[in-house]
Amino acid sequence: MRIGIIGGSGYTGVELLRLLCGRDDLEIVFISSRAQAGNRVDSLFPSLRGHVDLQFSDPDDVADAQCDLVFFATPNGTAMRQAPALLDKGIKVVDLSADFRLQDIAVWEQWYGMTHHCPALVADAVYGLPEMNREQIAGAMLVANPGCYPTTVQLGFLPLLEAGIVATESLIADAKSGITGAGRGASVPNLLAEASDSFKAYAVAGHRHLPEIEQGLRRMTSTTVDLTFTPHLLPIIRGIHATLYARLTADVDLQKLFEERYRDEPFVDVMPSGAHPETRSVRGTNMCRLAVHRPQGRDTAVVLAVEDNLVKGAAGQAVQNMNLMLGFPETRGLLQPALMP
Amino acid sequence: MRIGIIGGSGYTGVELLRLLCGRDDLEIVFISSRAQAGNRVDSLFPSLRGHVDLQFSDPDDVADAQCDLVFFATPNGTAMRQAPALLDKGIKVVDLSADFRLQDIAVWEQWYGMTHHCPALVADAVYGLPEMNREQIAGAMLVANPGCYPTTVQLGFLPLLEAGIVATESLIADAKSGITGAGRGASVPNLLAEASDSFKAYAVAGHRHLPEIEQGLRRMTSTTVDLTFTPHLLPIIRGIHATLYARLTADVDLQKLFEERYRDEPFVDVMPSGAHPETRSVRGTNMCRLAVHRPQGRDTAVVLAVEDNLVKGAAGQAVQNMNLMLGFPETRGLLQPALMP
Amino acid sequence: MRIGIIGGSGYTGVELLRLLCGRDDLEIVFISSRAQAGNRVDSLFPSLRGHVDLQFSDPDDVADAQCDLVFFATPNGTAMRQAPALLDKGIKVVDLSADFRLQDIAVWEQWYGMTHHCPALVADAVYGLPEMNREQIAGAMLVANPGCYPTTVQLGFLPLLEAGIVATESLIADAKSGITGAGRGASVPNLLAEASDSFKAYAVAGHRHLPEIEQGLRRMTSTTVDLTFTPHLLPIIRGIHATLYARLTADVDLQKLFEERYRDEPFVDVMPSGAHPETRSVRGTNMCRLAVHRPQGRDTAVVLAVEDNLVKGAAGQAVQNMNLMLGFPETRGLLQPALMP
Amino acid sequence: MRIGIIGGSGYTGVELLRLLCGRDDLEIVFISSRAQAGNRVDSLFPSLRGHVDLQFSDPDDVADAQCDLVFFATPNGTAMRQAPALLDKGIKVVDLSADFRLQDIAVWEQWYGMTHHCPALVADAVYGLPEMNREQIAGAMLVANPGCYPTTVQLGFLPLLEAGIVATESLIADAKSGITGAGRGASVPNLLAEASDSFKAYAVAGHRHLPEIEQGLRRMTSTTVDLTFTPHLLPIIRGIHATLYARLTADVDLQKLFEERYRDEPFVDVMPSGAHPETRSVRGTNMCRLAVHRPQGRDTAVVLAVEDNLVKGAAGQAVQNMNLMLGFPETRGLLQPALMP
Repeated sequence: MRIGIIGGSGYTGVELLRLLCGRDDLEIVFISSRAQAGNRVDSLFPSLRGHVDLQFSDPDDVADAQCDLVFFATPNGTAMRQAPALLDKGIKVVDLSADFRLQDIAVWEQWYGMTHHCPALVADAVYGLPEMNREQIAGAMLVANPGCYPTTVQLGFLPLLEAGIVATESLIADAKSGITGAGRGASVPNLLAEASDSFKAYAVAGHRHLPEIEQGLRRMTSTTVDLTFTPHLLPIIRGIHATLYARLTADVDLQKLFEERYRDEPFVDVMPSGAHPETRSVRGTNMCRLAVHRPQGRDTAVVLAVEDNLVKGAAGQAVQNMNLMLGFPETRGLLQPALMP
Repeated sequence: MRIGIIGGSGYTGVELLRLLCGRDDLEIVFISSRAQAGNRVDSLFPSLRGHVDLQFSDPDDVADAQCDLVFFATPNGTAMRQAPALLDKGIKVVDLSADFRLQDIAVWEQWYGMTHHCPALVADAVYGLPEMNREQIAGAMLVANPGCYPTTVQLGFLPLLEAGIVATESLIADAKSGITGAGRGASVPNLLAEASDSFKAYAVAGHRHLPEIEQGLRRMTSTTVDLTFTPHLLPIIRGIHATLYARLTADVDLQKLFEERYRDEPFVDVMPSGAHPETRSVRGTNMCRLAVHRPQGRDTAVVLAVEDNLVKGAAGQAVQNMNLMLGFPETRGLLQPALMP
Repeated sequence: MRIGIIGGSGYTGVELLRLLCGRDDLEIVFISSRAQAGNRVDSLFPSLRGHVDLQFSDPDDVADAQCDLVFFATPNGTAMRQAPALLDKGIKVVDLSADFRLQDIAVWEQWYGMTHHCPALVADAVYGLPEMNREQIAGAMLVANPGCYPTTVQLGFLPLLEAGIVATESLIADAKSGITGAGRGASVPNLLAEASDSFKAYAVAGHRHLPEIEQGLRRMTSTTVDLTFTPHLLPIIRGIHATLYARLTADVDLQKLFEERYRDEPFVDVMPSGAHPETRSVRGTNMCRLAVHRPQGRDTAVVLAVEDNLVKGAAGQAVQNMNLMLGFPETRGLLQPALMP
Repeated sequence: MRIGIIGGSGYTGVELLRLLCGRDDLEIVFISSRAQAGNRVDSLFPSLRGHVDLQFSDPDDVADAQCDLVFFATPNGTAMRQAPALLDKGIKVVDLSADFRLQDIAVWEQWYGMTHHCPALVADAVYGLPEMNREQIAGAMLVANPGCYPTTVQLGFLPLLEAGIVATESLIADAKSGITGAGRGASVPNLLAEASDSFKAYAVAGHRHLPEIEQGLRRMTSTTVDLTFTPHLLPIIRGIHATLYARLTADVDLQKLFEERYRDEPFVDVMPSGAHPETRSVRGTNMCRLAVHRPQGRDTAVVLAVEDNLVKGAAGQAVQNMNLMLGFPETRGLLQPALMP
């Protein structure tokens, strides 16, 4: 199978290469980057010396490349312009940006501050959360790969909402992300001198992932869903930890509920009762690791959920979706253990 | 005034020295440590070379020291045994441990796993949160210095509870602490190799600061208070960030409410509307910095509160209490700006 | 092939498991730990959930295990007692500790503060640096796996000493190690609160790796070798950076010298002229990455060498040696790219 | 006394404010920043809320401000254009940039890639290292504040060179700097995601501080001085650690030599024999802390020197120079202990 990557100079681009470069069932045909066109990939990313023997292509030069599937690892607003031509040629697309995630075009345009370029395609796009949509993904031409926060938060709330045992009008997601979630662009607030040895919340008034998460949660239940979503910036490289709060409306065995819901999921791991997952336990892996608590036996359920924002929250889930779309085993290339410590 | 410090080899001990060593209105008469007795303070803490010309004393050798006030910077269970003799001699005491924080002895014994040695004294101890109890502290012989989490969480909820505008039976405090909160003891989980570049919750089933916080919150309101308190470990040295959630039961101007409540407080700073305080903005200072939000205009208030856990959360608040107890200006020695970056 | 690991609860133990657990040409028969005996490996190391289905064994229970090769990931002083019995049964041994590294028993006893238990075996042990001793390793029963600093420093100096173009009586190695080099034991100086956001040298008066490095360097040359070796502690998890200084006695093309010496080495990568290798570029990999400089065209050569101290500096090199000893391809299981960022 | 700060939005600017804001013998008349003109200082730096009640001025608006002394905390190339007009008005100047540090204009122009705008002034500028030039600084109108690396490296070598006991043609300075040394500009390599949990050398072929250091070292001796200077980037916020190597040509008591040379220096601290200074022990302070070793009793001296690059390496030394120039006690405002941990 022939694979292309559009927009390869950011963290999701290099992460796709890390996950794909050892596979002999795939050929990476091109990786494009306007800024890096002509430079060797391994001069920008020396970690890939000996693993990736490619130069970055100019995006304008790859329009005619013969591929089976193309990843968009581009800023928001690019895939919606370029994906249609690829799809027309029968090339499958996994978009790691937000262009096809929200079904409500008006909401998308409000949060992303752009006019959507191909609203008609949005209805055909499948939201790439395999734990919800495995079968539709396998048959999709266009997959909207979920955001990093939305993956963790949705997987954490899913068993509770499907079971209908929590008050869905007052859900809370207190989420903390490593700094790669902010991308590889030069930025003062993301300097080591600014962000290390410190911690803060951001975008408390409203973050773009809020409508994506609420859209996903509403698919899990027939009731109203209102979520308070508070993102925070962690002084770590990779990792998201979501601490989720929901008021219980029924008395069920939460541990059993979570274990049964995820028993057959290869990339969701429910820890034993009483456990506290660490972000490092999934560093570099496609795993989302969960624990569920009920402090003091009161009526608030607390779910702890961790993922690597660049893997299960981005490139790894994209590869998982690609595996489904191209008929490979779902877990192929995604089973290495975490780098710990 | 003559000051003694019992238990000086931990982080609150060295922090007391940092805050006190430059003052010419005080004399540090002794600092004790059983493990370090006989060693120079500045050989253990080279940062104090040229500032502190003392050796650690054996705790058994300081019983007869003439002091006006003694700080206990000891593990839980020590002050309750040694404070009575000091108080009998007319020496004032600020206890940085938890021995005198909970008025309900049975609750204390349950959470701390010990029999309380002088329960009768507990009723006389004043809880050292000046923003609540300034006058009683000024007249107290024995002050129970608040815990690090409880200081931030109580100061964050205080205006909401005093105003009676939130549902107090479902409060949530999602709190994140730098690793000095765990003390200076050798410990595998607190190694840099284990705790850096990672993040986790801990003690979700129950943390000792829960009853202390709930006791404090109940004093602010006449209604039932139930708090879900989730502590997390941050890979930073100093700093607590508490993200507090409360369901609003009335429609008030939250920004104005907070600004008015804390207008005259020297160590609580309410940031402008829309702000996100960073822990580093209070690094090394006695300030608690707050911001209040109401995301999406819905009915959940979100309070962001930061402090330096070793200063406002421990040694700085202890000095603030000492200032009040000894008749010094409350802010003396506590007004240096944060070390930033 | 059947593999055993003695001493599995430290960082080299868990790293051996990470590198070996995915191989279908090996079976891990046991992993022992006196302290953790009976506990599941993945309860101590949740990163291995789903990858390693083993309990830690009591060291006393594995004496009769049938193995082809056993790794010692134990503190110094253990392998010298237990290896002889294994060797007598025909089981090959890779010792990751220092017990068999120094050929001069008196020097070993001086630096390690113990009487050597089986000095006769030391002469038979092969020093496991494949870039020097590949053939002897392939035929060895007992391999002394090099220390973390010695691997980097020797590989960095090797081309210069073999070529005979530097003054060997005044070599300098200014080396910086991530904190996992200090092991997983509880320790105050290695707490995140003590070691993060700081930097220091240590053991400048003399470090155990000095005689090991000097022994290795002397094998590369017929002249006297005197090394000044200054180790420093980096606030990072994994990684060693050695900055090596040697006075040139001849005028040669250093870049060409290094590239030719290491052209066929799978785990030594000479970067292009002018480059500066980063430790993160080898994070999690068995690669040693080098660059060579001659600042201002003066007569001092500066070599920059990085490795992951837990991989090429410990467990990875041990697996490389195992591959050679058991007849597997040398690079098997060791070719994944670094985790970057 | 009236003080102005030109270029206040970088790290040396905010650090000058931190050190000066509490003094009642000074008035900060203005702080300028073209990019931030009109914004409150404490909105950019919330750590200064309650401490600095100023807005950033437009640099063009401060030409007529009445001041006794002006600090330039600007990029290289600014002070050489603006200082002459201030000096003409009798205003003293401390330049924290490199414009007046090198006496050889040709060398300056080569390393800084600009034509020097006022070469005639360079001869009048005093190099602001008080431990070398205290008296000239006290009488100077224009002080060139030393670079961060040059301060540590010169103070570390000074006793050896003055005593004439080392081979000065082969000195080595292996220096490691915290990331604030790179300034507050947006930059990909200085992102937390790029620089944390990693370590590298940089500018090994030649760094601008090399000619500054060599100029300083040559003033200490009558012999030739050749230095190999290797800077490295530490994943810490503040702090420089220089590890200095020199071949001894005479047998002297190094500990005594260092202690005697610096006995009366308020900001150089020679640690006891065998010690290893940590950068955190000087965090936030104006101290340079030294230790000297002679490993294995061989003929190489190893000096360990630490400073806070923003204080003794920049703003603190600038205040020390200001104190001397304005007749204040040299140590005023600079004696707070380090923030540790």
